[in-house]
Amino acid sequence: MTLIEDLNWRHATKAYNPIKKVSEEDLLKILEAARLAPTSSGLQQFRVIAVESKEVRKKLVPGSLNPECMVECSCVLVFAAWDEYTPERIDAIYDLTTEERDLPPGRFSSYTDKIKEMYAKQPKEEHFIHAAKQSYIGLGMALAQAAELRIDSTPAEGFDNDLVDDVLELEKQGLKSVTLLYLGYSDKERDWLATMKKVRNPMQEFAIRIK
Amino acid sequence: MTLIEDLNWRHATKAYNPIKKVSEEDLLKILEAARLAPTSSGLQQFRVIAVESKEVRKKLVPGSLNPECMVECSCVLVFAAWDEYTPERIDAIYDLTTEERDLPPGRFSSYTDKIKEMYAKQPKEEHFIHAAKQSYIGLGMALAQAAELRIDSTPAEGFDNDLVDDVLELEKQGLKSVTLLYLGYSDKERDWLATMKKVRNPMQEFAIRIK
Repeated sequence: MTLIEDLNWRHATKAYNPIKKVSEEDLLKILEAARLAPTSSGLQQFRVIAVESKEVRKKLVPGSLNPECMVECSCVLVFAAWDEYTPERIDAIYDLTTEERDLPPGRFSSYTDKIKEMYAKQPKEEHFIHAAKQSYIGLGMALAQAAELRIDSTPAEGFDNDLVDDVLELEKQGLKSVTLLYLGYSDKERDWLATMKKVRNPMQEFAIRIK
Repeated sequence: MTLIEDLNWRHATKAYNPIKKVSEEDLLKILEAARLAPTSSGLQQFRVIAVESKEVRKKLVPGSLNPECMVECSCVLVFAAWDEYTPERIDAIYDLTTEERDLPPGRFSSYTDKIKEMYAKQPKEEHFIHAAKQSYIGLGMALAQAAELRIDSTPAEGFDNDLVDDVLELEKQGLKSVTLLYLGYSDKERDWLATMKKVRNPMQEFAIRIK
């Protein structure tokens, strides 16, 4: 199957079969696709919290626009981004890169000095907005991977971010929640969107060509 | 090939073969993958400007962090998002959806009333940030599709947004530039990243499991 076939297959699932579980093997593939997503300056400024626990998910229900999906799906992925850019965080990933590539220490220091200086001038709120944007690339990869495996999913923004941050204790990990991705198998009888046509702006409106 | 194989294959290409062109067929597939990306409330609040013209690309060089890629790649995709949410824009996509699905007029009006009210309370700057985030999902789909086709690509943020908006006359289309995606074929001799190991945080750091 091709990516285009996979993307045409998927839809934002509105109701899940509460019994059928995503296998551990498939869940790991979905996480791996998100992990491989590119990010600005290669900083990998987002993480994914995979919540299978029903107990924890019940705590996330208040403020959610999809309370049934939250408890009935197989697993909820919470995409969370760095709450700020710090020199230590930037160094950590470039130290790992230097080591993994067997490069001389300090190979990237002129570049990291430049980005540290750039971010030092910005307020923390802008850091989070920028980091959060990167997490949408990972969200896209995760849902494309789910579709490839014919696993249903629902990307979602409508939830109580503060509550999710509290329940998952994200602050002490230097993270703030951005989006959710429900994963599982559609309950076709209740999933009203399952049989509806996918609608997108026609290509001639979506893409502007300058040849 | 699987998405994971495709994502492992790709890298942020640092130099392009200035002669080898992406075929029209492949370019259309890349645009199609971006078009199929899901977006918040299904609003499809981003567009892609595919710039093949060398003349126009030369005008985009000042302020670009990848000036050589800008002129030597085969095509530059500019991801641009709505500069604001307006009732008219929201209605347009829901009118299209209603028509394409052969639903009774007004089928979505309670939902669109709700989102119009929500966005009316926000400053225009927040609208653009929110719309821009959605475009990163499309950026991800486009680069995954390029990788599936074994076309090299470079996602990029470092450019002069005002200049790009001016040259492409985005303001009059109600758009603002967000990211670039260079497309083409790597010039292996000058593309220093081509042979380097891809580095990501290990899975146990990237994903937090709550079972």
